[in-house]
Amino acid sequence: MSTRPVRRHLPVPFTAVELQDRVWSARQAVVRERTVPFLYAQYEKNGLFEALDVDRPPGPLRIPFNNRPNTAVMYWDSDIAKWIEMASYALAGHADPTLEARIDELVTRIAKAQRPDGYFNSYFIRREPAKRWTNLRDWHELYCAGHLIEAAVAHAQVTGKSALLDVVRRYADYIATIFGPGSGQRRGYCGHPEIELALVRLARFTGERRYLLLAQFFVDERGRQPHYFDGEALARGEDPAAQYYGTYEYSQSHVPVREQRHVVGHAVRAMYLYSAMADLAAEMDDATLLAACRALWADLTTKRLYVTGGLGPSARNEGFTADYDLPNESAYAETCAAVGLVFWAHRMLLAEGDARYADTMELALYNGALSGLSLDGEHFFYENPLASRGGHGRWTWHRCPCCPPNIGRLVASLAQYVYSTGPGEIAIHLYVASVARLAVDGITVVLRQTTDYPWDGAIRVRVDPIRAAEFALSLRMPGWCRSSRLAINGQALDVSSALDRGYVHVRRQWQPADELELHLDMPPERIYANPEVAADVGRVALKRGPIVYCIEGEDHDAPTHCIALPASSRVEPRFEPDLLSGVGLLTAAAAAVEPWDSTALYRPDRPITRPTMLRAIPYSFWSNRVPKDMNVWIREI
Amino acid sequence: MSTRPVRRHLPVPFTAVELQDRVWSARQAVVRERTVPFLYAQYEKNGLFEALDVDRPPGPLRIPFNNRPNTAVMYWDSDIAKWIEMASYALAGHADPTLEARIDELVTRIAKAQRPDGYFNSYFIRREPAKRWTNLRDWHELYCAGHLIEAAVAHAQVTGKSALLDVVRRYADYIATIFGPGSGQRRGYCGHPEIELALVRLARFTGERRYLLLAQFFVDERGRQPHYFDGEALARGEDPAAQYYGTYEYSQSHVPVREQRHVVGHAVRAMYLYSAMADLAAEMDDATLLAACRALWADLTTKRLYVTGGLGPSARNEGFTADYDLPNESAYAETCAAVGLVFWAHRMLLAEGDARYADTMELALYNGALSGLSLDGEHFFYENPLASRGGHGRWTWHRCPCCPPNIGRLVASLAQYVYSTGPGEIAIHLYVASVARLAVDGITVVLRQTTDYPWDGAIRVRVDPIRAAEFALSLRMPGWCRSSRLAINGQALDVSSALDRGYVHVRRQWQPADELELHLDMPPERIYANPEVAADVGRVALKRGPIVYCIEGEDHDAPTHCIALPASSRVEPRFEPDLLSGVGLLTAAAAAVEPWDSTALYRPDRPITRPTMLRAIPYSFWSNRVPKDMNVWIREI
Repeated sequence: MSTRPVRRHLPVPFTAVELQDRVWSARQAVVRERTVPFLYAQYEKNGLFEALDVDRPPGPLRIPFNNRPNTAVMYWDSDIAKWIEMASYALAGHADPTLEARIDELVTRIAKAQRPDGYFNSYFIRREPAKRWTNLRDWHELYCAGHLIEAAVAHAQVTGKSALLDVVRRYADYIATIFGPGSGQRRGYCGHPEIELALVRLARFTGERRYLLLAQFFVDERGRQPHYFDGEALARGEDPAAQYYGTYEYSQSHVPVREQRHVVGHAVRAMYLYSAMADLAAEMDDATLLAACRALWADLTTKRLYVTGGLGPSARNEGFTADYDLPNESAYAETCAAVGLVFWAHRMLLAEGDARYADTMELALYNGALSGLSLDGEHFFYENPLASRGGHGRWTWHRCPCCPPNIGRLVASLAQYVYSTGPGEIAIHLYVASVARLAVDGITVVLRQTTDYPWDGAIRVRVDPIRAAEFALSLRMPGWCRSSRLAINGQALDVSSALDRGYVHVRRQWQPADELELHLDMPPERIYANPEVAADVGRVALKRGPIVYCIEGEDHDAPTHCIALPASSRVEPRFEPDLLSGVGLLTAAAAAVEPWDSTALYRPDRPITRPTMLRAIPYSFWSNRVPKDMNVWIREI
Repeated sequence: MSTRPVRRHLPVPFTAVELQDRVWSARQAVVRERTVPFLYAQYEKNGLFEALDVDRPPGPLRIPFNNRPNTAVMYWDSDIAKWIEMASYALAGHADPTLEARIDELVTRIAKAQRPDGYFNSYFIRREPAKRWTNLRDWHELYCAGHLIEAAVAHAQVTGKSALLDVVRRYADYIATIFGPGSGQRRGYCGHPEIELALVRLARFTGERRYLLLAQFFVDERGRQPHYFDGEALARGEDPAAQYYGTYEYSQSHVPVREQRHVVGHAVRAMYLYSAMADLAAEMDDATLLAACRALWADLTTKRLYVTGGLGPSARNEGFTADYDLPNESAYAETCAAVGLVFWAHRMLLAEGDARYADTMELALYNGALSGLSLDGEHFFYENPLASRGGHGRWTWHRCPCCPPNIGRLVASLAQYVYSTGPGEIAIHLYVASVARLAVDGITVVLRQTTDYPWDGAIRVRVDPIRAAEFALSLRMPGWCRSSRLAINGQALDVSSALDRGYVHVRRQWQPADELELHLDMPPERIYANPEVAADVGRVALKRGPIVYCIEGEDHDAPTHCIALPASSRVEPRFEPDLLSGVGLLTAAAAAVEPWDSTALYRPDRPITRPTMLRAIPYSFWSNRVPKDMNVWIREI
């Protein structure tokens, strides 16, 4: 790995890009028109908004489930914040005075509840005022603050209003008085990372370096000895060892972050922490922090990641277990974890400019993250297993409702992941029909992508600088792509000669109306897992472009676990406009094990097979019809 | 199914049979010489015996794990009782004054702690005297009483001493005053069945019908409305719905037992309950209770049983989930559940005289139950998965140490499962080298089995009535056996003509020194699961006779999950005297998927395979060398 300085590119504001494609623009419309009002109604029904009225006496609290050390009510603020963030994104380019008024009303309530010292947490203000900052390990207090900060930045970015931003700046300034290395300050940090990346975002938006330094403090305190959570537990009169998950790996606080080399513990916590580490590595040009990020990235992507970009196989710790432990049916693979992987991958990409981060970002976006949201925008997955016998369906409400606004805010802000800019360079990371208005070295450039990606590999990019200008347009060559052709204004360009870290850097004097044609060959592919992954030996996954496919019961005349794909069978792509709002399919001649004509559970006769047709749909589109069985990894015969 | 009256056969006292075979007599020696003293030392170290000193003030109690509504300390009495039961069996035929004195000392302490009213439970006497009988659902009070009763009967049977029997009779008589249909009595029953089958055993041993009636009361109250556990929870000021597992299926109290048709909930509870139901059906000639047992049996054996005779796939409820949900690596399949299945199968066999019950009993004995005990007698499994990637090892102590004395008492009392007797009939259920002294219609008959079963299918039975007598000797034709030959005194007998419900009934005038030769063909077999079992599609299990085989990492040059068995490969049996104290092996030419030479987790190249040799060992003998990976279900190619 090179030692060149970090921090190559800046993220592009999500307001700069308008999507016009089949997949994401449709999902953005659904989030705007369905998910945003639907979740608002759910929050209202379930008492989340009422909890903001901190001066009203609290009602009875539902007993925490299974002796968890916290209750979801403790982090309702974060759900409201994620809703505000999502709803703010939804307003961008789609003025909606009613929605804007709803957001403003919530902001007013939050501002009203904020304490004079700047503190805001509706749970602790209302129910446990004496317990403020007494259990950072379990109670998500700074986590809630982080989400509120993210919401405030998004709200200000879209609406230009500063009411929420004022609240979080006061709150962050107050937090900086409580936490820090100074005498009388607490050297604590949150059990659930989030505030760190939020503070970086606040620093970038406000230009205030002190928020960056506070983020750095939280990141660097993590895992230090004597362990803050130990002292905090003793101060509560508790045994530090008697914690819910028994180990500090759960919250990635087992060793200082710069010494961490293996992805462990709760997957969402891990992704948010690593995102903040990548942010800080870039902002501070911090090589040892980046080295830790690189090692963690390698660990995740070579040993602990599902083929869908899902991660964290175990429900027990909502997180990681052992290398190559990637069971399919019991995969937890929380939606929020895949969303978090998009965050981390994006930040690694900006810091390093290497297309492999974009590959993983795209993989998680189109598959493991998107699967968390139904086509109708009102049904959700928390777990994203890679196999189901029909018992796994989408829900409309969850006792821990963190995932819906998380995938919602990701979808609504997708535009920011398409491009990035750096000195003399615009990079295209995602191919998606869109119009973008970007700036490179002060020159405004309008980029128009025309493509039916991900269903087709042909991409036209019209480049319109407001005046002729020299800069590099860097085109990602996806890792899944084995051959491609590129032409500028009809003239072929040798892709391989200009390739660096997975990008073709086309540096030239760009003229208005220049046109670039890229063709990415996109044949269906059979993907195999490393034989260390016991669950997938003898099995194959189907992919085309960035899309991972699955077989769902609805499309087959046998249970999907009974379907096998012969190694010799040709897999054909097809676009089906009338299915699932329009999706690419893969079909192949296959074999199905016949059901037994007896009630025997075991017997010495080999089950027989018959021919059948396999019809695979994109994994992230499954469970949008009647709940049925599903498999990503198909037995290959 | 016929409607003939139930209760065909009586169990044979375990003291009547002396085992001389390779498998069980060796295990009995290990239990006697190692497990009994080892567990005694473990109990001493972990404070179980000290807890009997009810007049000493109690020490601090470890916080219950994960908000379970009880602590293992609440049922330590049952572990002590199972130890006494196991140790008593171990004394049979092997006088050991030191051990006998140890048992007597424990009995003295128990008798001393017994309350004047007859009550005995060291936990409640010492720690919660006011909470006696206030939470039958969760606190195992009657369950502990049941195990004490079983221990007392075993102790009295072997030693002739009545000290413990006197304790439990007084206790049972006291319980009968508290629980019953009379006014002022409680219509309760234990959340964890056990007392029911124990009371039947006490009734049979003492001849006191009232214990049978109390057992019947407990069985019939179960699941009635209004639900006893509801009322009991309300009386404690608790929400009846706020229970650990949320449903009454967990304790098989969701509907009255006669209406139950599906095996549900905690697997050990289910097996103990169904055992009592079968006992009572036989004792009371109760057709509707037997009908429920038959339906439950069919449900278990056609939809919810592992090929090993293990049962209860889920750790969450330590029990049953959905039909055909039989995952291999995550199989819970608690040792105690397989032991309980032996109990139930034995009782169904005695009630119905049908060999399919003996088939399942034998299957569970040799495989899913025996696997819980190491060859050295000092290492145990709680869970008995059918696949492991190396992370599942045997332990020497467990926070819920129920399994070791349970498999110990089963092994130590195995003799009672070999034969049964009824009017004019002796039945041989298990083929095992042994000498038995039985009685049929008052005539003593000595039976000598000479065989190397289960490693060989040749069995000689010498029949020695003390004088010539007519009776039927009924020989089980195992369900796994596809062809057999039988001869008496050298003269061939047509097996099929005398076959009824899986037994060849040889009725004749038996003379001293008559000799019967049975040859059961025992080729290695490939077993397939019903294709509804998603985990096993495309896979094969290997069996020979009653033994289910597995492949363990120690015997292979590739991870066992990478090994595949070609459909055309010939599987050969071999006896290996020097391996694992002597076991039958199966070998075959096989293929192994090669490891990848890269760190890639996924790639489009099909993994390559190379030839290898497969060497399968009996499943119940696995994990007796260095902990390694293991698979029962092998991919078939």
